[in-house]
Amino acid sequence: MNETQVNAAAHPYPVYIGENLRHHTSDYLPKDYASILIVSDESVSNYYLSDVMAGLSQENVFSHTIPAGEQSKNINTFYQLHTKAIECGLDRKSLIIALGGGVVGDVTGFTAATYMRGIDFIQMPTTILAHDSSVGGKVAINHEHGKNMIGNFYAPAAVIYDVQTLYTLNAKEIRSGYAELLKEALLADKNLYEDLIAMDLNSLDSQKLIQHLTKGIEIKAGIVEVDEQEAGIRKHLNLGHTLGHALESLLGYGAWTHGELVAIGMLFALKISEDNYSAELPFEEIYTWLRNNGYPLQLPNIDPEMILAKMKNDKKTLNQKIQLVLLRGIGQPTLLEINDEQLLTYISDFQVEMNQRSKEG
Amino acid sequence: MNETQVNAAAHPYPVYIGENLRHHTSDYLPKDYASILIVSDESVSNYYLSDVMAGLSQENVFSHTIPAGEQSKNINTFYQLHTKAIECGLDRKSLIIALGGGVVGDVTGFTAATYMRGIDFIQMPTTILAHDSSVGGKVAINHEHGKNMIGNFYAPAAVIYDVQTLYTLNAKEIRSGYAELLKEALLADKNLYEDLIAMDLNSLDSQKLIQHLTKGIEIKAGIVEVDEQEAGIRKHLNLGHTLGHALESLLGYGAWTHGELVAIGMLFALKISEDNYSAELPFEEIYTWLRNNGYPLQLPNIDPEMILAKMKNDKKTLNQKIQLVLLRGIGQPTLLEINDEQLLTYISDFQVEMNQRSKEG
Ligand SMILES: NC(=O)c1ccc[n+]([C@@H]2O[C@H](COP(=O)([O-])OP(=O)(O)OC[C@H]3O[C@@H](n4cnc5c(N)ncnc54)[C@H](O)[C@@H]3O)[C@@H](O)[C@H]2O)c1
Ligand SMILES: NC(=O)c1ccc[n+]([C@@H]2O[C@H](COP(=O)([O-])OP(=O)(O)OC[C@H]3O[C@@H](n4cnc5c(N)ncnc54)[C@H](O)[C@@H]3O)[C@@H](O)[C@H]2O)c1
Ligand SMILES: [Zn+2]
Ligand SMILES: [Zn+2]
Repeated sequence: MNETQVNAAAHPYPVYIGENLRHHTSDYLPKDYASILIVSDESVSNYYLSDVMAGLSQENVFSHTIPAGEQSKNINTFYQLHTKAIECGLDRKSLIIALGGGVVGDVTGFTAATYMRGIDFIQMPTTILAHDSSVGGKVAINHEHGKNMIGNFYAPAAVIYDVQTLYTLNAKEIRSGYAELLKEALLADKNLYEDLIAMDLNSLDSQKLIQHLTKGIEIKAGIVEVDEQEAGIRKHLNLGHTLGHALESLLGYGAWTHGELVAIGMLFALKISEDNYSAELPFEEIYTWLRNNGYPLQLPNIDPEMILAKMKNDKKTLNQKIQLVLLRGIGQPTLLEINDEQLLTYISDFQVEMNQRSKEG
Repeated sequence: MNETQVNAAAHPYPVYIGENLRHHTSDYLPKDYASILIVSDESVSNYYLSDVMAGLSQENVFSHTIPAGEQSKNINTFYQLHTKAIECGLDRKSLIIALGGGVVGDVTGFTAATYMRGIDFIQMPTTILAHDSSVGGKVAINHEHGKNMIGNFYAPAAVIYDVQTLYTLNAKEIRSGYAELLKEALLADKNLYEDLIAMDLNSLDSQKLIQHLTKGIEIKAGIVEVDEQEAGIRKHLNLGHTLGHALESLLGYGAWTHGELVAIGMLFALKISEDNYSAELPFEEIYTWLRNNGYPLQLPNIDPEMILAKMKNDKKTLNQKIQLVLLRGIGQPTLLEINDEQLLTYISDFQVEMNQRSKEG
């Protein structure tokens, strides 16, 4: 088992990454709690809820299950979770555990952050992607007009990551999570990049998972510790996300996975990076790896103007100007402001090229 | 004009208290904002919204009006305010202003705290009671099962308090606000107590208002600075509130004013204080002052068991035990745990006594 510490502004917290942790959940709690509410989604609770319940050696453990998928990350779920917490009699000395992927983590974390103005919560991520969402303290729900529009910065009390839960993930979810790992590698770690790009996502093993997730979390934590509120370098973590989020919202949350769209967004960022810095970036290598690992790479057929409009709605754009995260090289992220006209050209060119490549196989 | 500084954990902020500030709102903003959304309620916006708009010398000022009253402090208003903020294109460099009483302040503050995970907001209190709610950084909405159950700790960027807006308050609202001032005096300031108890609420003047509100805010700020998250002495500010909140929720929020019920709660706390510490507390003096100033003092006819149950639902009670704020004397608050049986007796005795006194006139 690996243990990493994240030094959040509010308080430091441990991240445990290993095998079979869920059977001994009590061992990883930072303190005693009067009562515990575990929130999970329908798929995850089928697989792992009873393990976690059995791994908690105390009374007053409650659970609540929400429908699986991004659609659950909304104001109604948020309110229902509050209702459940009240019904279970949770108070300021209680704990809420998020057992699931980023959706469960985000809506549960936001509930914990706002229940009685904030009680302890613990992330038990069960997707690869959730290595990203469980660290860094961002919690949120979606507004019908924009993703993650309503939320808080709220650090968990601990993250308990049992990699053995990851073997029930389907191929799409594995791709989704590895896209974020690839992002972290591109931002900060050439060795990790080389390790990933040599990988076949069809053959995961626990040691690799522990290693990659630990690295990914360390990279993310390193950035977030310096800039929790996203005033500066935390923006780098949005590599691939400006386009990714726009597509996600245009396609209706959940049609493609988050990471699949971020992967497309990263290719887009690489294209623009090449154009602006004429750097020798590994666009081809990444494109090939994504294709070989089954990432959908044909850009959805959406009017570029609509994509641009959505990108401008994104909360990361201050005063309506678009700032993109680009790369001067692996490990060298940078921010560039791009005007609308230029961006529109980039979008249509990229759409054309991606569709061309897809046709060619 | 008085200026006080509150040293919140997140950042210090100024509180300006004076006459006619609303006509020069721009002068009191801590920095420039790309855009501003002013939230107010129907009554307050009729009186003062145009003054504040005219007092802001910039473009991109939007406004939104919610229905007046506690009923607005709910999840729907919260979501609507987010919708409005998105529609107005507010981003992380924007400001939200709460122009109104505690209801507007609480729901607007919670919206600002969660919009894009938190943007600046400024309190412009227009009730006397809001001297309390605008300082200390608590923001929240009600859940149908409990008051202020969903919220954050979130400090404003500034508080701009124009006492001239207070002359349009009706008698009930003046009573409501002065109950909290009386509470602060009882907790910490014998001189303020003597000043208040000699007052006739029918004849307010600006100098008195500035003086009382400044004192009240200084007392509250002094407590909150030491214990923002309510782990210890901030609990003292709940003097009168355990019973007050229970009654508020049983009577349906808004039937009586908050402060009127807190006033009853304070009398209750004084009774129990006398019983436990046999201190010479000014119960009679306060009772008389409240009666002379038109406070409704007949305890609503509710089953004591129901009142007790509601008190135990209150989020300030950890692990289902009731802790009451009591007084050993003026300026000497203390906490006492009281068991259910004892409390039930206190409640029925108090009900009987208050009704007796009311009948006697
Ligand atoms: N807070 C942050 O910093 C942050 C960062 C990145 C992403 N996110 C958010 O995370 C969400 C995406 O996370 P996600 O991809 O984990 O989505 P998810 O939680 O919806 O999980 C994806 C799917 O996998 C299923 N699943 C989860 N664990 C499983 C397991 N062990 N076995 C089998 N099936 C399992 C789920 O039921 C779901 O159907 C998005 O809402 C995104 O906005 C947040
Ligand atoms: N956040 C905190 O720390 C805190 C502390 C105390 C109370 N509160 C909350 O504050 C709320 C009560 O505040 P409130 O008493 O100000 O209620 P309020 O905001 O509902 O105002 C009371 C009434 O007065 C009207 N009004 C406001 N200003 C006016 C003016 N200048 N002239 C004429 N009418 C005016 C309003 O329209 C409303 O009808 C409660 O919800 C309570 O929970 C919060
Ligand atoms: Zn992401
Ligand atoms: Zn109060």
